[in-house]
Amino acid sequence: MTWRFALVIDPAPVDDTRTDFADTFTQIDPSAPALTVGELSTQRGDGIFETIGVIDGHVQEAEAHLQRLAHSARLCDLPAPHPDQWRQAIARAAAACGTGECAIKLILSRGVEHGPAPTAWVTAAETADFTDARDIGIRVVTLDRGYDITTPDRAPWLLLGAKTLSYAVNMAALREAKRRGADDAIFVSTDGFVLEAPTASLILLRGDRFITPAPHGGILQGTTQQSLFDHFRAHRYAVDYETIPVADLATADGAWLVSSLRLAAPITEIDGTPLPVDTALTASINHYLLSPRD
Amino acid sequence: MTWRFALVIDPAPVDDTRTDFADTFTQIDPSAPALTVGELSTQRGDGIFETIGVIDGHVQEAEAHLQRLAHSARLCDLPAPHPDQWRQAIARAAAACGTGECAIKLILSRGVEHGPAPTAWVTAAETADFTDARDIGIRVVTLDRGYDITTPDRAPWLLLGAKTLSYAVNMAALREAKRRGADDAIFVSTDGFVLEAPTASLILLRGDRFITPAPHGGILQGTTQQSLFDHFRAHRYAVDYETIPVADLATADGAWLVSSLRLAAPITEIDGTPLPVDTALTASINHYLLSPRD
Repeated sequence: MTWRFALVIDPAPVDDTRTDFADTFTQIDPSAPALTVGELSTQRGDGIFETIGVIDGHVQEAEAHLQRLAHSARLCDLPAPHPDQWRQAIARAAAACGTGECAIKLILSRGVEHGPAPTAWVTAAETADFTDARDIGIRVVTLDRGYDITTPDRAPWLLLGAKTLSYAVNMAALREAKRRGADDAIFVSTDGFVLEAPTASLILLRGDRFITPAPHGGILQGTTQQSLFDHFRAHRYAVDYETIPVADLATADGAWLVSSLRLAAPITEIDGTPLPVDTALTASINHYLLSPRD
Repeated sequence: MTWRFALVIDPAPVDDTRTDFADTFTQIDPSAPALTVGELSTQRGDGIFETIGVIDGHVQEAEAHLQRLAHSARLCDLPAPHPDQWRQAIARAAAACGTGECAIKLILSRGVEHGPAPTAWVTAAETADFTDARDIGIRVVTLDRGYDITTPDRAPWLLLGAKTLSYAVNMAALREAKRRGADDAIFVSTDGFVLEAPTASLILLRGDRFITPAPHGGILQGTTQQSLFDHFRAHRYAVDYETIPVADLATADGAWLVSSLRLAAPITEIDGTPLPVDTALTASINHYLLSPRD
């Protein structure tokens, strides 16, 4: 991975009325030390993040990502991010991206232990080459997430709808998938419903309808999934949010994991069961996802 | 909090046969930038840690902490920590502690994203003043951990027995406890058993027996709890590991949350129900925990 840019942000209160936040930004060398060992992001995974795709300098769905960052902040009792401040930080990062595909990451941390305020930063980096995942597809396995689908309503302190920096389990699930000879995983609930992938959302095709797991059960609202559903609706496809039993995976007429950087990766098999892959449909989906989106 | 010391470690392979690891250590200013924004500890909470108490320069139960660090590394597919290297790093940190109570933290991170190797560091800092918690006690609430007690065996990728840096949920549980007017929380399983506190182990007194939740159900083996059980056994008290129903909390003859820094905090009430506090017994427990232990 090649870093393109990094900016440390001094987070402004959400009621700050200024229009130019330049003096709250400090551009840094992304390869140089920038964070102290007291950072709670590093000590406790205590913070939130967003990963945004940039294509030929255009930031994809910036507002949806900023809304989700604000949602995560609420769930984690972090100060609300100032939208204009983050928009300006994103614009600076995007300017460093150049042509091709690039990843902008927003991080809002609870700050330094016993420190006075949150810390925040934005980075830009070249993305990996996702051609094979988009064109050939991926094999996935289902992995138990340990929760039943009612857990998030019952126990909000589990932060199941927040995109926190505490992603060790998501990373362990990806390692487990690779141990099983697959490329990725789909988390399922203990009561037998489909949730999401460790770093992506799931979309299934059933007949001529696209469906995705309903956003309860601690699923992150997928920005790429929402963007695709808007696109499908505009093209008069039916889309639905449903509570999907795990058994329905094997009989889907198509399935994709969708995310901000890899975009739509068609699933070629789930737990060893082959799934149909519509190459032309997948190409048209990724054509849309690679076009400028707001 | 006052930092005393920080050391960045270049992790040695466990089969390294040297006896002096000084050239793998770089002492740093704990308040100065030391970590890059690419650190996976900060981006993903992807790493493990230990917090060790130091009392008048004596490192408490260093070997138990090193064993648990190695256990966490296995669960997280991280390279095994070289025991001698970490012992020497701990000794340096302890030398910076001076008199009184001090906290040494060991962190082993998966490293910088796409980087070649893990990163690691050790810090030492003065601890908070825990006098009130030890002498007066704490009020706790029970909080659903979302898992049933069989989950860890079924889904090791949930890393439930590892002490990872992904502690956002533990921190959220402490905030929820404070929102409810309590000082701390006890996690319970969905099937009604007592687990542990977000940053401590639970010990109950029942008649003349000390009991603690059996180390399944994803409970971290508490180093302070184990040390105390050794002490109790030596003084001919009965100790047991049990699967403890939540309902048994309210009828305990005494209860403590025990951890490396706060040591034994007697629980004065659980979910609003008062519990008996034996001040003399608690004082004798903390007297032991404050004595040099190996």
